[in-house]
Amino acid sequence: MEELEQQIRFLLELDKQKKIGRQTYLADGSRKEGDAEHAWHLAVMAFMLADYANQKIDVLKTVKMVLLHDVIEIDAGDTYAYDTEANKTKRDREVKAADRIYGLLPERQKQEYRALWDEFEAMETPEAKFANTLDKVQPVLLNNASGGRSWREHQIKVDQIMARNERTHEGSETLWFYIRNLIEENIKKGNIGT
Amino acid sequence: MEELEQQIRFLLELDKQKKIGRQTYLADGSRKEGDAEHAWHLAVMAFMLADYANQKIDVLKTVKMVLLHDVIEIDAGDTYAYDTEANKTKRDREVKAADRIYGLLPERQKQEYRALWDEFEAMETPEAKFANTLDKVQPVLLNNASGGRSWREHQIKVDQIMARNERTHEGSETLWFYIRNLIEENIKKGNIGT
Repeated sequence: MEELEQQIRFLLELDKQKKIGRQTYLADGSRKEGDAEHAWHLAVMAFMLADYANQKIDVLKTVKMVLLHDVIEIDAGDTYAYDTEANKTKRDREVKAADRIYGLLPERQKQEYRALWDEFEAMETPEAKFANTLDKVQPVLLNNASGGRSWREHQIKVDQIMARNERTHEGSETLWFYIRNLIEENIKKGNIGT
Repeated sequence: MEELEQQIRFLLELDKQKKIGRQTYLADGSRKEGDAEHAWHLAVMAFMLADYANQKIDVLKTVKMVLLHDVIEIDAGDTYAYDTEANKTKRDREVKAADRIYGLLPERQKQEYRALWDEFEAMETPEAKFANTLDKVQPVLLNNASGGRSWREHQIKVDQIMARNERTHEGSETLWFYIRNLIEENIKKGNIGT
């Protein structure tokens, strides 16, 4: 029962992720989405869109990776993609968070899930590339659906989006092609600055 | 691209699930959780606690099942477990919802995901039994953590909880044993009526 107690503690710790807010609005623009909602959305995408990955992926591994990829934000907070200052300290804050939070788990799972996060961050394997691509694609889908609300509020420019999406094609050329079109449409509409 | 367009439409439709509220409070009691957050929590439990399933389960299948099990609530709403009147019409409302929402998908995925929901509802396979067990276990963990807030507010009695959990042991004797202890503790504390 000791292992189960540790797992339950971890699951209750994870509950805090529901309260971490993101900058992306829901598709209907009514409010911003939370971290847990975002992770859920990515997990559905991971198995539903797996055929679009450039390389064959282990779907279960990818699903686990995206379900847990933002756990570190419980301690480190959500670092907005276009906040240059906050991004300087992001990596340090997140590594500390990973040490503490994954440390709650029984040894075997601690190793496995921590390794999945390290793999996600390193962005080298087919699964990590695809997971990172989904993490970039989902907010574009939502931003486009909400009339570009988050882009407009933060006065985001196309150069920032392109820099952030420099490696999005590595996970899926198809999905990158799809969102590049959406980005272009939103430039035309004036939702993204030039 | 036509298939991808259909999948994106489905994913944007799913976004509405983030706005469906449940009766369970977050562990810290600060607010009630949403459907998408609940599904995310179950998905993590599905792979993290898979070893406690009574029968060997296909983990990826179970994860997909729990990630999508409440999609029908986009149209049918969340039917509170202890609302007797609403539960009379629940099945009809949910089947209509499944027809419409899964109908957005390309044929192959429409078949697969609809079948997963039917399987979840029928509660006969090892995966469906375990998924249903998680769906019962998670709110007990949260209710216990929040000091039994939702049970107290709805003046829930132990007989109602036991009736609702009549089959929880079928997915996992270990998890049923664990939450039965939590239920007993909450009876002693007066959070659950007798």
